[in-house]
Amino acid sequence: MSKLVRFGVSLDQALLDKFDRLAKERNYTSRSEAFRDLMRQELVQKQWQEGKEIAGAITLIYDHHKRELVNKLMDIQHDFGALIISSQHVHIDHSNCLEIIAFKGSPKEAQRLADRLRSVKGVKHGTVSMSTTGKDM
Amino acid sequence: MSKLVRFGVSLDQALLDKFDRLAKERNYTSRSEAFRDLMRQELVQKQWQEGKEIAGAITLIYDHHKRELVNKLMDIQHDFGALIISSQHVHIDHSNCLEIIAFKGSPKEAQRLADRLRSVKGVKHGTVSMSTTGKDM
Amino acid sequence: MSKLVRFGVSLDQALLDKFDRLAKERNYTSRSEAFRDLMRQELVQKQWQEGKEIAGAITLIYDHHKRELVNKLMDIQHDFGALIISSQHVHIDHSNCLEIIAFKGSPKEAQRLADRLRSVKGVKHGTVSMSTTGKDM
Amino acid sequence: MSKLVRFGVSLDQALLDKFDRLAKERNYTSRSEAFRDLMRQELVQKQWQEGKEIAGAITLIYDHHKRELVNKLMDIQHDFGALIISSQHVHIDHSNCLEIIAFKGSPKEAQRLADRLRSVKGVKHGTVSMSTTGKDM
Repeated sequence: MSKLVRFGVSLDQALLDKFDRLAKERNYTSRSEAFRDLMRQELVQKQWQEGKEIAGAITLIYDHHKRELVNKLMDIQHDFGALIISSQHVHIDHSNCLEIIAFKGSPKEAQRLADRLRSVKGVKHGTVSMSTTGKDM
Repeated sequence: MSKLVRFGVSLDQALLDKFDRLAKERNYTSRSEAFRDLMRQELVQKQWQEGKEIAGAITLIYDHHKRELVNKLMDIQHDFGALIISSQHVHIDHSNCLEIIAFKGSPKEAQRLADRLRSVKGVKHGTVSMSTTGKDM
Repeated sequence: MSKLVRFGVSLDQALLDKFDRLAKERNYTSRSEAFRDLMRQELVQKQWQEGKEIAGAITLIYDHHKRELVNKLMDIQHDFGALIISSQHVHIDHSNCLEIIAFKGSPKEAQRLADRLRSVKGVKHGTVSMSTTGKDM
Repeated sequence: MSKLVRFGVSLDQALLDKFDRLAKERNYTSRSEAFRDLMRQELVQKQWQEGKEIAGAITLIYDHHKRELVNKLMDIQHDFGALIISSQHVHIDHSNCLEIIAFKGSPKEAQRLADRLRSVKGVKHGTVSMSTTGKDM
């Protein structure tokens, strides 16, 4: 547990007003809490850029009726066995599947996995949630 | 199954070269496949902006030792019972938890849920994967 | 919240000794807590027998390299879209997959789903966790 | 891939009839497939008895409003970080949660984890799916 510090920030009133409105909209109880979040977001981005160990999730939407698709997605995932922790599968309707793959490892590997999954013909949409392992945060 | 169309696009050679390099890096087997993905990404964004039914995932990192935190996250999630499908929980280390919440419903509700979860004191990082139910895509 | 009652039970000392040892082994802090659990287990079984709404999980182990297998499992699950909530997928090693399907609905449907999944050629092992929705318990 | 063998089994006609009816009810396409499953079930039980590396799932139902309960379950799970792969959480209704914990490791540890989770006051029901990693099966 590190000690709490306080410091001043100088900025334009108009910018502060806009930020305060956003923070309120987003349910923050104080301006400091909103600032802490912003700063952590920047730090997480830095972890990704510097190749530190990160964590996150890949979200895919696809039509499971495209037969080869399901096998290809499965094969790719087994090639990244060390990166992937587990995945969650939701049957959205008779055709569409939502698959969410949790991972921990190097940002480069995560990006490579996401690129390979997204480029499989029949995957309708794919996103990567760039998160963190929470260490040093 | 709709029929396949072909059409021309005019653009700057330099831009096309850059795009082709990116598409190759990202494992696309053809330029058309890369274009289809870009277009679908725009359409998904539109679904979110227009308040259509969407799907996606919220990814949170937090320290489960902050006692009230876990209960608050659980209470908030139960308040959004109609939106949330299920969640996946990974114990990253002795302190840090990765939680990924799959949802389907209105973009506004999803954003409200994400904002409430992220603003809980002790949540280190939170992201929203804006995806789609796959219908009309 | 219902009121707490106390009642007596007559039984053989030897049986009670064995039960107490088991309860201790299983970490129960009191004999009453162990009894409550036993009774709830019986009530859950009754819910399954009487066709009440139940919840539970189907656990499958299979080799994803058997190509048709993965597609068949996916097709069967989409046929039971109203029963299945979501599934969790773990890549145990390069070949073996652990899939855990959470469901809520009628016991008969759940049993039918489990039977169909387990009988797919190439599924190595399948179990059903008969649990409860927690209502009236 | 091992070679396929055929062998004879002698048994009572009445028993065979009953078994065939069960196999048909359970969707098996042949008696041999049903036998293979039975044999694998026995082998999985042996893996558990002999302390070999196994896999499986623990299914819990609890009322998340019991505040200390959620924290206790979380703490116990973090104590078994090496055993647990990930967990899946379903909000059944405003009070009841279905939590399914996937694990891989020693049968003894898995049993110890299940016993500790189930004995937490407020857990309404808990089951263990004894499965296998699929190796040597």
